[in-house]
Amino acid sequence: MLRTIFVLNRCVLMAERTAVRKGMSAEEMAKEQREISISEFFEKNKHLLGFDNPTKALLVVVKEATDNSLDACQDAEILPDIIVKIKSIGEDKFRVSVQDNGPGIVKEQIPRVFGKLLYGSKFHHLRQNRGQQGIGISACVLYSQLTTGSPMRIWSKTEGSKKGYHYEIFINTSKNEPEIVKEEEWVDGFDHGVRLEMDVTARYRKWVEDYLKQTSVSNPFAKIIYTAPDGTKTTYARSIDKLPRQAKEMRPHPYGLEWGSLYRISQATQSRGLAGFLVNEFSSVGATTAKEICKVARLDPNLNPKTLEREQIEKLLGAMQKVKVQRPPTECVVPIGTEDLEKSLKSEYPNSEFITVRSRNPEVYRGFPFAIEVGIVYGGDLPQNEAAQLQRFANRVPLLYQAGACATVEAVKETDWKRYGVQQSGSSLPVGPMILLIHMCGVWVPFVSESKEAIAPYPEIVKEMKLAIQDAGRELSRYLSGKRRKGEAKRRMLIFERYSTEVAEALANLTKGDKSDIEKKLKSMIAEKMTFDDTAGNEEAGGDGQSDGKTTPVKEKTKPATAKPADVEKK
Amino acid sequence: MLRTIFVLNRCVLMAERTAVRKGMSAEEMAKEQREISISEFFEKNKHLLGFDNPTKALLVVVKEATDNSLDACQDAEILPDIIVKIKSIGEDKFRVSVQDNGPGIVKEQIPRVFGKLLYGSKFHHLRQNRGQQGIGISACVLYSQLTTGSPMRIWSKTEGSKKGYHYEIFINTSKNEPEIVKEEEWVDGFDHGVRLEMDVTARYRKWVEDYLKQTSVSNPFAKIIYTAPDGTKTTYARSIDKLPRQAKEMRPHPYGLEWGSLYRISQATQSRGLAGFLVNEFSSVGATTAKEICKVARLDPNLNPKTLEREQIEKLLGAMQKVKVQRPPTECVVPIGTEDLEKSLKSEYPNSEFITVRSRNPEVYRGFPFAIEVGIVYGGDLPQNEAAQLQRFANRVPLLYQAGACATVEAVKETDWKRYGVQQSGSSLPVGPMILLIHMCGVWVPFVSESKEAIAPYPEIVKEMKLAIQDAGRELSRYLSGKRRKGEAKRRMLIFERYSTEVAEALANLTKGDKSDIEKKLKSMIAEKMTFDDTAGNEEAGGDGQSDGKTTPVKEKTKPATAKPADVEKK
Repeated sequence: MLRTIFVLNRCVLMAERTAVRKGMSAEEMAKEQREISISEFFEKNKHLLGFDNPTKALLVVVKEATDNSLDACQDAEILPDIIVKIKSIGEDKFRVSVQDNGPGIVKEQIPRVFGKLLYGSKFHHLRQNRGQQGIGISACVLYSQLTTGSPMRIWSKTEGSKKGYHYEIFINTSKNEPEIVKEEEWVDGFDHGVRLEMDVTARYRKWVEDYLKQTSVSNPFAKIIYTAPDGTKTTYARSIDKLPRQAKEMRPHPYGLEWGSLYRISQATQSRGLAGFLVNEFSSVGATTAKEICKVARLDPNLNPKTLEREQIEKLLGAMQKVKVQRPPTECVVPIGTEDLEKSLKSEYPNSEFITVRSRNPEVYRGFPFAIEVGIVYGGDLPQNEAAQLQRFANRVPLLYQAGACATVEAVKETDWKRYGVQQSGSSLPVGPMILLIHMCGVWVPFVSESKEAIAPYPEIVKEMKLAIQDAGRELSRYLSGKRRKGEAKRRMLIFERYSTEVAEALANLTKGDKSDIEKKLKSMIAEKMTFDDTAGNEEAGGDGQSDGKTTPVKEKTKPATAKPADVEKK
Repeated sequence: MLRTIFVLNRCVLMAERTAVRKGMSAEEMAKEQREISISEFFEKNKHLLGFDNPTKALLVVVKEATDNSLDACQDAEILPDIIVKIKSIGEDKFRVSVQDNGPGIVKEQIPRVFGKLLYGSKFHHLRQNRGQQGIGISACVLYSQLTTGSPMRIWSKTEGSKKGYHYEIFINTSKNEPEIVKEEEWVDGFDHGVRLEMDVTARYRKWVEDYLKQTSVSNPFAKIIYTAPDGTKTTYARSIDKLPRQAKEMRPHPYGLEWGSLYRISQATQSRGLAGFLVNEFSSVGATTAKEICKVARLDPNLNPKTLEREQIEKLLGAMQKVKVQRPPTECVVPIGTEDLEKSLKSEYPNSEFITVRSRNPEVYRGFPFAIEVGIVYGGDLPQNEAAQLQRFANRVPLLYQAGACATVEAVKETDWKRYGVQQSGSSLPVGPMILLIHMCGVWVPFVSESKEAIAPYPEIVKEMKLAIQDAGRELSRYLSGKRRKGEAKRRMLIFERYSTEVAEALANLTKGDKSDIEKKLKSMIAEKMTFDDTAGNEEAGGDGQSDGKTTPVKEKTKPATAKPADVEKK
C-alpha cells in the first residue's frame, strides 16, 4: 500500500540526470511542463506552513489539532474537553495525540478532511472561525509521512452512535488525495469526538506549554489536559462554564468588492431584479440604498442580474463603491469580552497585582468587520527588568512566531510607554513586570503567510490596536502613579510616626497640655492621613468612549489614583 | 462563454444566508465540507501572491511576465530582447503587454501554462531558475479576470514555424483549469517568442522603472525597451553580448534529506543494488562513500532499493547524515560574476565615482548550493545624507518588497559600517551616497512567501552575505580613506604653495642663494609630493580569500590607498 503513495514519473527522474541543457527548443521545454499538485508544492515549501524547524513543527502539529477541536466543539455548542499528549518515541521523534469531546466527523468525510489539502467547511463562508483555509491538519499528515513515513491515525465517533471508525491515512502527494491504509469499526473508548495520533520528527521545547496556557486564556470555556514527554500532567481548567455566543455569518459587503466576486454572485443569485439582488446578496444594503446604487450606475433596477454584461458589472461595481452604505453588521464579530478575559487572566496569573482589559467596538477594514481586545497584567512574580511579554491572538488562537511581521508588535512599538510610567528605550518593546495581550477577532484575519503566524499590518488594524493599548495604558498609569504616591506618603508618615513621641513631648511643653493625649491625637491624625491617601482621587478618567473596560488591582485593596494631565494624549 | 467561468454551487450561497447556527451535528458539518481549488484559495488570499495593493499589482504583473521571458530566452540560449508597455485604459485600469524573442510556447501547452495555477517545468528540477513554482503568470491571469473581467491575450510563435497561435484565456477558478475564449492562427508579427497582453486594476508608480533598471543590472545580456503610460520610451541596453553559462541541474544531496524524499527516490530508481543506487541518484556520492553509508546503516550494499522497508529507509537516512559526504557540485550555481556585474553597474551608474563588486565562492545550506554577490556604487549624483539604497536580488530577479523580512537587510544592519568610514546610527542602514547590491543565486532560494519578495534569513545565508559585504566594505574604506588623505595633503600643499614666494625669499636671505631658483625647487617639491600622494599605498589588502573582487574608481584615475589596521576584522 505504502508503495503506491509516493509516485514519481520516471521520465522526470531521467530528466534530472541530463546535466547541461544547451539551447532548448519550445518542443523540448513542453516535455518538461506538467502539473504540480498542491501537496507536492507544500511538501517542498513546508516552511510556508510553519514547518521550518523541528521545534516549531511540534508546536504546529499540536496547534492545528487543538484549533480544529475547539472549532468543532464551539460549532456543536459543546464545552470542550481536550486531551493533549506528547510522547518521545526515539531520537528527535515524537508521538502526538489530541482527543476532543466534539461532535465527531462522519465516516465518509474522514479520509478527505485529513488526506487532502485545501478541503474544509470554512473557506467558503464569511464567519469568524479559527480555521479558514482547509490546509492545517492535512499539512500535519504531510509532515508526518514526510519525516517518519507513518500515517495519521484517526478515531472518530459521532454523537449518539454506538460505534466509531478508525482510519490510518496517508496523502498521495502527486494526486493530493487520501490513501487509506486501514479502515475499521471500533466500539469502546470515548462517547463522541475525535482522537488523532501522529508520529513526527521534532524537537521538544516549553513553547508547547506556552501555547496551551495562552489558548486557555483566550478560551476560558475550554478544559485542556496536557501530558508532556517527561510524563508531567498539567490541567488548564475552565475559568467560565459558558460558551461564547455563536458568530453570525455575514454576506459580502459592497465596499472593497471586486469585479470577479460581483460577477460570481450575480450568476448564482435567485433574485430576478437588480435592486432585489443587491438587498438579498449583500450586507447592509436596504431598498433605498439599492435604488440609489442602480441610479448612480444608470442601470434599470428590474434588470435580471444574470444577464449583466461585463461593462454593466463594472458600472454597478463603481456605483457600489460611491453610494454610502452602512457598516457591516458587527454581530459577526465575537470578542472574548472584558468579563471573561479578566476572569481568565486572573485565574492564569493569580500572583499578579494589577489587571486591566479593554474590548474595542468593532471596526471595518476592506468590508470585513473586526474587533481588538487588549489586556495588561502587571507586577507579582513577573520579571522586573525584562521586555514585557507580548501575547498575540487571532480569533482566540495564540500566535507564537513571526512577531516582527505582526501588526500587534507594530502597535506596541509605536505606543509611547513612558507616558504611562513604563520604561521604554526608543521604539522598542516596553520594559517591566508586565504581560501585554492583544487579540484580533473578525470574519477574515489577514495573515502574512499560510502558517498564520502574524497579522498583516493593515493601517486600520494597527490604529485600532494602538487605541486599545493607549486606553489600557492610561489605566495602568493611574494604578502606577497611585501606587507611587501612596508609597511616598506612607514613607513620609512613617518617618513622622517614628518621631511622634518627641513631637508630642515638645508640643506638650509648649502648650502645657497632656503629653499622652497629644501623642494619641497625633497618631490618629497619621492613621487618618494614611487611609485618606489610600482612597484619594478615586475617579475614572475616560478614553474615547469606544471601548469597554475592566480593571482589578489583584492583590491590594486600593483603588487607582487619578490620571496625571500628561496622560491625556492625542489619538 | 464568460458565464461558465465563475461557477458557484448554489447550495453554498444558500448556506451563506443561514445566519446563526446552533449546535451543529457532525452530519450538518459534513454537508459544508468541500474541496477548495487552488485558484479559489489564491483568489481569496491574493496578498500571498503579491497582489495586496494596486501599485504592487502592476509591478507583479510586469515582473512575472518579464521573468518568464528571461528564463525562456536563457534556456533557449537566445540573447533576450524584451518589449514592455504599460497603457492607461481608464481610471485605475492599465493594459500591460510584454513581448519576447524567446523560443515560444507550443500550441498545446499555451492554455495550461497560463490558465492553471501550479503548472510548469521548473518545480520538479533542482536547477537555478528565476521561476520555481508554476504560479506566477497564471496568478496574473487570475488577478486580471478578478479585477477587470477580461482574459489574458497570448500570441506565441515557435522558432522555425511560419504561423503562430493566438489565445484568449480565463481560469475556471472552481476547477483550476483553463477556459479558452478565443483560439486562432496568426501569421504576421514577430519571428518567434511570446507576446502577452492583460488588463488589470492597478496604480502606476515609478517602481516599475526601478524594477526594470535593476533587472537590467542583474541581466546585463538583456535588452529591455519600455514604454511608460505617458508614452515615454526607455531602452535598457545590453552591456554585454554574451549569455551566462547554463546552470547545471543537480541531484539531491544526502544532507538534509527527509524520509519521504528518500522513499520516493528509492521507488523510482533504475538501480538494482543499494550502493549503485546511492552513487546514481545522489550528488557527491562515490563508490567508497556509498559503501561506507551501507556499512553504517548495516544494510547489504546489494539490497534492491525498491524492497526497502520503513525501518530500513530510516537507517539508511540516518547513515547518510552521519557519513562524511562531499559538498554538492558548485557548477549548479551561476553567479553574475564580478566582471559582468561591474560592467553592468558602470553602464547603469556612469556618474558614480567608485564601484566595487564581490562574488563569493559557493556555499551550502540544507544540501542546496548557493552563492552571494555584493556590489557597492559610491558617490557622484547619489544623495549624500540619505540611507544607502539597497538593491536585493534572488537568481537575478530584483526584490522590491518585504525588505524587513529579508536576509539581505539583516546582513546589512548587522554590519558595522563605521569601520568602513560610512555613517550608521545604531543597527540601521548605513547613510551616504551609496548603492548596495546583494545577489543570492542558487538552485533553491527559500522565500518567505509565494510572492517571492524576501529571502528567508537562514543563518548560513546571512553569514555569507555579511562576509561579502565586509569584503566590499574594506575596499570602500580604502577608497574613502585614500580620498580623505589625498584631500588633506593637497590642502596642506596648497597652503604651502601659497606662501612659497615668502618662504623662498626667507631661504634666499638665509642661504644667500638665488631666490627664483629656490622657489622653483620648492614648487617642484610640492608638485612631486602631490603626485606621490596620488599613488601612495597602492597595494591590495586581502579578505579571507573566499571571494573574487573587482574595483574601479570610476571618475578619478587614482588607485585606492592602503587599508587601516582597524579594518582587518574577525569573521
